Amino acid sequence: MRYDVAIIGTGPAGISAALNLKLHNKSIIWFGSSDLSMKVEKSEKIANYPGVPMVGGQSLNDIFKRQIEDAGLEITDKMVTSITTTRQGFMILGDNDIYEADQILLATGTIAAKSLPGEQELLGKGVSYCATCDGFLYKQKSIAVLCSAKRYEHEVKYLAELAKKVYLYAAYSDCEINLPNVELLGSSIREIKGQERVEHITTLSGEEYPVDGVFILRTAVAPTSLMNNLEVDGNHIAVNRKMETNIPGCYAAGDCTGRPYQIAKAVGEGNIAAHSIVEDK
Amino acid sequence: MRYDVAIIGTGPAGISAALNLKLHNKSIIWFGSSDLSMKVEKSEKIANYPGVPMVGGQSLNDIFKRQIEDAGLEITDKMVTSITTTRQGFMILGDNDIYEADQILLATGTIAAKSLPGEQELLGKGVSYCATCDGFLYKQKSIAVLCSAKRYEHEVKYLAELAKKVYLYAAYSDCEINLPNVELLGSSIREIKGQERVEHITTLSGEEYPVDGVFILRTAVAPTSLMNNLEVDGNHIAVNRKMETNIPGCYAAGDCTGRPYQIAKAVGEGNIAAHSIVEDK
Repeated sequence: MRYDVAIIGTGPAGISAALNLKLHNKSIIWFGSSDLSMKVEKSEKIANYPGVPMVGGQSLNDIFKRQIEDAGLEITDKMVTSITTTRQGFMILGDNDIYEADQILLATGTIAAKSLPGEQELLGKGVSYCATCDGFLYKQKSIAVLCSAKRYEHEVKYLAELAKKVYLYAAYSDCEINLPNVELLGSSIREIKGQERVEHITTLSGEEYPVDGVFILRTAVAPTSLMNNLEVDGNHIAVNRKMETNIPGCYAAGDCTGRPYQIAKAVGEGNIAAHSIVEDK
Repeated sequence: MRYDVAIIGTGPAGISAALNLKLHNKSIIWFGSSDLSMKVEKSEKIANYPGVPMVGGQSLNDIFKRQIEDAGLEITDKMVTSITTTRQGFMILGDNDIYEADQILLATGTIAAKSLPGEQELLGKGVSYCATCDGFLYKQKSIAVLCSAKRYEHEVKYLAELAKKVYLYAAYSDCEINLPNVELLGSSIREIKGQERVEHITTLSGEEYPVDGVFILRTAVAPTSLMNNLEVDGNHIAVNRKMETNIPGCYAAGDCTGRPYQIAKAVGEGNIAAHSIVEDK
């Protein structure tokens, strides 16, 4: 299906943009977690967001959820794994489904704009973002899995049913996976190595594991992995004051554009991006 | 007295900056109306500010007021009429009092960054922003007064006691001044003219009035009138993504930096400016 605008990310920047684009009667496909930003959710007290005095992150997310629902906005809880530019706009792969949009807003959060060393080079050559898409390729093989959130544990379990051996790094505290063929890594993946295809990974603590594939189950894929020619400024997406990136029709807002990592800044940038999107069409 | 930071403006941008600077233990002098932004106050419904669903402007300002009070912030309800750079920072004239600050944030709202034609050229040569400062100079003379808000009506009355004739333009709807020597103008001042000193004004509807002085009683003075070398971009203060202006130590945020004129954008920029201010010292 074709939409006016695709928004990637359901944190404050995405929410701010979505509310505004909806008011401007744009058709929107909005990708991200319907649990909204985990960074907001885990904030104990937010003391500097004007209009909502001294609020806990969970309460603020609850207000956001109500606001989203009242505005008639819907979240498509799929992970975007690839965005390509087309003649008319953008083609987006969300889990296994294809979506099209004229304009796109990246609001992917604090995830580094850059991917792991080797990630982009070996994408499709052993590196995958989607267990259900590519898991079957690794029957009885060895794989590494970087799991960024508890909500992807079912994908890890699915992979463990297929693979002979799974080296798992869980980037959250309460990992409950306890399976005979799953070995928990003590530190995250530093690099993915291989010539033609993935051959092994190294971890931040310096260990090396031979693997046939690497599954990166992140709440969001690094923007430069999503889009090929996206210009970055250090670890962030480069934007101007209109929140335009170097790719025409592609905007960015929120933590992914740089510091300060603040709700107010994200909300402001989402608003500006939405207005630029409306103006530019 | 000397402060770390002076903030000019009590709208959403100023509020956002003040909350953040306070959290960073900066000493703040905060100029503006303690009624906060009239633009917010007069908004019937705000549907696109994340975190505060469908709120009336008055209610939002009430929340802001509570938040300001809870944060222990104080507003100095004086009009800033001049800012000069000093070796250590800035010297600010608020009504008739002098304040000093190391850094400064301009959050002056939608008022055009540029002043009226003739305003800057004739400032101090018949043009004044302060009735109590300069009114005595116009005893038994003719003056024009541009009054932007009801709260300045007492200043108009004071001027009417001194002057022989007052040509008044009230830029609000419920002007209650009814004095024998005050003539209400049907349209605002277009230009202030004169060679060495103010000689006459023209109005938007094309009339000309001979006057000895012009009092401009605005909730805020055009930023370029406040500061001499401030770089503008059209009608707005020119800033970069860090909200820095061309003058070192001087930042701007909110409507005064350009469109979209939105609470979310103002709040975001105030937040960024505060973080830049903290980083730069």
